[in-house]
Amino acid sequence: MDWDRFFVPYQQTVTELKIKLRGLRDQFEKDGKNSPIEFVTGRVKTQESIEEKIVRRHLDEARLSLDLQDIAGVRIMTKYVEDVYTVVELLRSRTDFQILEERDYVTNAKPSGYRSYHIVIEYPVQMYSGERKVLAEIQVRTIAMNVWATIEHDLRYKHGDNLPAPMVEQLTILADDNFEWDQRVSEIRASE
Amino acid sequence: MDWDRFFVPYQQTVTELKIKLRGLRDQFEKDGKNSPIEFVTGRVKTQESIEEKIVRRHLDEARLSLDLQDIAGVRIMTKYVEDVYTVVELLRSRTDFQILEERDYVTNAKPSGYRSYHIVIEYPVQMYSGERKVLAEIQVRTIAMNVWATIEHDLRYKHGDNLPAPMVEQLTILADDNFEWDQRVSEIRASE
Amino acid sequence: MDWDRFFVPYQQTVTELKIKLRGLRDQFEKDGKNSPIEFVTGRVKTQESIEEKIVRRHLDEARLSLDLQDIAGVRIMTKYVEDVYTVVELLRSRTDFQILEERDYVTNAKPSGYRSYHIVIEYPVQMYSGERKVLAEIQVRTIAMNVWATIEHDLRYKHGDNLPAPMVEQLTILADDNFEWDQRVSEIRASE
Amino acid sequence: MDWDRFFVPYQQTVTELKIKLRGLRDQFEKDGKNSPIEFVTGRVKTQESIEEKIVRRHLDEARLSLDLQDIAGVRIMTKYVEDVYTVVELLRSRTDFQILEERDYVTNAKPSGYRSYHIVIEYPVQMYSGERKVLAEIQVRTIAMNVWATIEHDLRYKHGDNLPAPMVEQLTILADDNFEWDQRVSEIRASE
Repeated sequence: MDWDRFFVPYQQTVTELKIKLRGLRDQFEKDGKNSPIEFVTGRVKTQESIEEKIVRRHLDEARLSLDLQDIAGVRIMTKYVEDVYTVVELLRSRTDFQILEERDYVTNAKPSGYRSYHIVIEYPVQMYSGERKVLAEIQVRTIAMNVWATIEHDLRYKHGDNLPAPMVEQLTILADDNFEWDQRVSEIRASE
Repeated sequence: MDWDRFFVPYQQTVTELKIKLRGLRDQFEKDGKNSPIEFVTGRVKTQESIEEKIVRRHLDEARLSLDLQDIAGVRIMTKYVEDVYTVVELLRSRTDFQILEERDYVTNAKPSGYRSYHIVIEYPVQMYSGERKVLAEIQVRTIAMNVWATIEHDLRYKHGDNLPAPMVEQLTILADDNFEWDQRVSEIRASE
Repeated sequence: MDWDRFFVPYQQTVTELKIKLRGLRDQFEKDGKNSPIEFVTGRVKTQESIEEKIVRRHLDEARLSLDLQDIAGVRIMTKYVEDVYTVVELLRSRTDFQILEERDYVTNAKPSGYRSYHIVIEYPVQMYSGERKVLAEIQVRTIAMNVWATIEHDLRYKHGDNLPAPMVEQLTILADDNFEWDQRVSEIRASE
Repeated sequence: MDWDRFFVPYQQTVTELKIKLRGLRDQFEKDGKNSPIEFVTGRVKTQESIEEKIVRRHLDEARLSLDLQDIAGVRIMTKYVEDVYTVVELLRSRTDFQILEERDYVTNAKPSGYRSYHIVIEYPVQMYSGERKVLAEIQVRTIAMNVWATIEHDLRYKHGDNLPAPMVEQLTILADDNFEWDQRVSEIRASE
């Protein structure tokens, strides 16, 4: 497996999507409007992480680009919960990629407490050998949800992906309190 | 006042500091260590905002570079409260700028609830006409504190810097709850 | 005329095209192939330059985006003359923009001696209000042609766009010698 | 040898120097002055290239950072030959690094015809463990000299570093003609 070559279209997809979505934020600002997009990050899954998934899920290397939907990943952070849905609408109205799937973990949190809106897209990348459709995952979440996810990921990583049960429990409570905090923010904002 | 020229050393200062501090984060990662720096942002104060301050504080244009310490501003976000102090230590040990002043609003929040560690530095920029010392402000805070500050700033901005008293009060409660949340994170982390 | 807003789609077009074309170069390199693209630059025409054209050519402000094809401009530099045509083929095969016009000033130099391959495209930019087609000009030239164009532009600029006739003549001779140099390079390369 | 860690200070040096030297160019432009710096590039020597040098020159891995002066390399391109010396003066006047050595291959070309002004510096990088002095090489040359060097490097690379003698000869003639061309440019410019 030539990983360097494998990653080229994914890296290109992430770079282009970041540039495009950050451009959207700038456009709102230049128009004197409030941008629902606070900031945008992106990453390509590491070789290490893909290889680990191949083993764990018994994946076929030849089908990786079909079976793994998040090799290319972009994350959009919003200030307010309601902005998540504004961003989702913006993404749906674009003509430069196709949405394949949506999962709303903002309204329906995962059991861990994780919240985020996931969209799987098919993005056309221009390779020198022609157009290539690449699967990518866009996650939309508030900056507060992103804080929780960052900390949960860090603690999980340090425990080799095996968090002790009491810690999982504590983290779920932190996620719930975090979401309640986000909702109070929205209420204060609506009271303006 | 030729603002374009005025901003050149400040823009350069912000660009260099961002590159340097992000490099530090990468260095921790390449060494397989946990970086106390989660992400770094920077900005130069806008002309509009400086002009407003000149009027409000009766500043002398000729003394702006001495009287305004935050024309160049860089922000370092950490995952954990304790990392704020690790970053402050890192900044103190550097030989590429001079620390002039420190204010610890992390332990001692402002009345509004605002928390962040402020450091004023004197940073030498190489202009084609020679070295120039530039004042800059580095703020260090957790990603959670940054969420609150982002939202408070946004609501304040929308109200033309005149937040209604009940909203100020609600925001202070949100800040306190936010800090308590940060402290629970540290406890869970310490229990590992 | 709100120039800040006017420039948004053009700036976005230039940023996206640069990212895409540089990605192409990286793809060749990762594949262990020789990239016909040496480097890529881009710029948006300045307000000053557009206003000067409006006056000189009696343009209608409302029709600027139709009458000026090079507000968004991207330049691709190649090492060898023959690579210019390889790049043109690559551009023709892309599905992310439409080519409207091609002018081959590489084979048929302008009277000044200027050489470059010009392609006018229609590029779809995703604005938050929907897709917007933007005209852009892509210039393809060797790095040697680019040296001459850079120097000619600099001297012209310093003379307020009014080069003395003997200087124009000298510059044309320099352009011709430059092209002859480029052709000798291609011969040496072919003799490998 | 942990190459990833080895390269960290060199990558940081290149990134900082590029940002600083590009900032200088912007400063000239904002001041409405002609920048002697046309563009700046930088690269860290590849592991492959260093390993090849270790073998060929019998280098000691433990002394690499002392024996190889160009692991970190930055290149400054100027429009005119005379600008090379203006840039050298600018570099000499800086207080953020120490010049260790200068070699003027602009006036005294190498036998191959290669022209460039080389400066070896000692640049202080702030690591999290403290300041670290890094050797770096800055090359200053005209954009025309850079064209020749790019083509010579490409042809040499394709021949596995073993160019046939007649090709070497042809390339030297191309270099000489190129320099003569550069001198005619300077004459035309001086005749303004």
